[in-house]
Amino acid sequence: MNTPLVPQSVLEHFGIAVAAITGVLAARGKRIDLFGVLVLALVTAYGGGTVRDLLMGDLPPVWLRSSAYLLNATLTALVTFFVVRLRSLPERVLLIADAFALALFTMIGVRKGITLDFTPSVAILLGIITGVAGGILRDVLLGEVPLVFRREINLYATAALGGAALYVGLDAAGTAEAIATTAGVILTLTLRLAGIRWKIGLPLLEAR
Amino acid sequence: MNTPLVPQSVLEHFGIAVAAITGVLAARGKRIDLFGVLVLALVTAYGGGTVRDLLMGDLPPVWLRSSAYLLNATLTALVTFFVVRLRSLPERVLLIADAFALALFTMIGVRKGITLDFTPSVAILLGIITGVAGGILRDVLLGEVPLVFRREINLYATAALGGAALYVGLDAAGTAEAIATTAGVILTLTLRLAGIRWKIGLPLLEAR
Amino acid sequence: MNTPLVPQSVLEHFGIAVAAITGVLAARGKRIDLFGVLVLALVTAYGGGTVRDLLMGDLPPVWLRSSAYLLNATLTALVTFFVVRLRSLPERVLLIADAFALALFTMIGVRKGITLDFTPSVAILLGIITGVAGGILRDVLLGEVPLVFRREINLYATAALGGAALYVGLDAAGTAEAIATTAGVILTLTLRLAGIRWKIGLPLLEAR
Repeated sequence: MNTPLVPQSVLEHFGIAVAAITGVLAARGKRIDLFGVLVLALVTAYGGGTVRDLLMGDLPPVWLRSSAYLLNATLTALVTFFVVRLRSLPERVLLIADAFALALFTMIGVRKGITLDFTPSVAILLGIITGVAGGILRDVLLGEVPLVFRREINLYATAALGGAALYVGLDAAGTAEAIATTAGVILTLTLRLAGIRWKIGLPLLEAR
Repeated sequence: MNTPLVPQSVLEHFGIAVAAITGVLAARGKRIDLFGVLVLALVTAYGGGTVRDLLMGDLPPVWLRSSAYLLNATLTALVTFFVVRLRSLPERVLLIADAFALALFTMIGVRKGITLDFTPSVAILLGIITGVAGGILRDVLLGEVPLVFRREINLYATAALGGAALYVGLDAAGTAEAIATTAGVILTLTLRLAGIRWKIGLPLLEAR
Repeated sequence: MNTPLVPQSVLEHFGIAVAAITGVLAARGKRIDLFGVLVLALVTAYGGGTVRDLLMGDLPPVWLRSSAYLLNATLTALVTFFVVRLRSLPERVLLIADAFALALFTMIGVRKGITLDFTPSVAILLGIITGVAGGILRDVLLGEVPLVFRREINLYATAALGGAALYVGLDAAGTAEAIATTAGVILTLTLRLAGIRWKIGLPLLEAR
């Protein structure tokens, strides 16, 4: 174990708070009440890690083991709920914060996969699931085709795939965990922000 | 262990039957066939307990361990299916029965959380999940925004929260389980029925 | 243990590939990108077995334990993705292949239920879940009422129920596993193909 500059739990709490905010914002224009907004926030914040842990059989998930996690998304959602009713949030800041959350969640997932001895390709998949499943569940609860399935998302899951694959490669080459993680986060962020900046998207099933 | 007047399994079977009926009724106007109706009934009846048990890692859930549970929702749904085709059900009776089911499911969930040593706030959440997750899954299968997320539901999850919190408080104060459970059921019922009677609802994300 | 002519894993891989193809095809007309298509393929291919294993508490599911399973659906989906953009697939061939996949998945599920000592009715349910849950999840991700809930599907879950019940009956009567499985597959296939040929459907909730 090496000691990173910022402990994992701090990064995780940052990711959870950002995800909770996007969960609240997804409810705009839907006539959803405070309870619905809280569920959407919790599902977005904990959904990715929970799907991963369900599949791995590592239960109960961490947010049920300590009240601190639960408190984080709940309070963030409550504050966001009342702020959103007063003023609009700066979309740009949010997109960048969300890219950080994606990168952090993905790294947490892929590291857990490697630590528990899954094969490299499965570990990468677990990283992507941790990064994107919360948002997929949020959109399913809203009766919508998940945003991450659409070309307009501009390299979301793909950015997670890139970062996770880089982590797995560096880890296999014997790189220190802190360095591999940092490299994975940077690649995920770069791909995601480049995707947004230049509107890069994956091919659609139907080209026309 | 104290011996309640009515054993828990009887109450649980009552809740399951009522939930199965609401699952069948949700399919009205959707051109759904008998199989779809059965799935909706089973999901509504067992969904809340199953999500709770999945998260807790207490598997398989009780309805897979004994055929009696499976039989209950299946037969209830079959009977309801054919009754609904002939005549309409009294909406008011159903709303009151459903309020009882909500209260019972919530108490079962919160008690399980306390028994398995989760923190009070997590136990309350497990109670709410047991009470409302079945209906959320039912609505998601129908491609709709869950009813419990809408203001028109009139204190559904909130009633569960109230009852669960009261149970946790009384339990922490050393109250006998039977009394705490009864008090929790009564508070949940009162909040829910008051919500329906006076059309009380939570604030919406967008006030206008 | 008897040695079947075709080992179970070969049949399973066949079913997974067919299911992955139907996952890709379901995305037509939805403006879904390559990542969305891959998720839909994986969910359709592994969803039924995963829901079954989650409920049984047998985790992680087999497709996370070996990369061969993951590779199968991923490659099948990639090839289908690019083929679909060039030409249409023969619908009839696909329907028949899908009927085989349904029969195989159902048998795998019911056998697992019997092997792990669940009651006969629960084992039948586990067979049906393995056969149909992947398609249900696929349709939920697309925001649609599951195809298998509609009369137009023509005996899909019902065919699985018939085959699973026959397997359980033969198994209880002491029939060799290979024979019971073959009989179950044949009955499922016959019901499904007869349903398609003569447009047989279950009654709808609302007859009018």
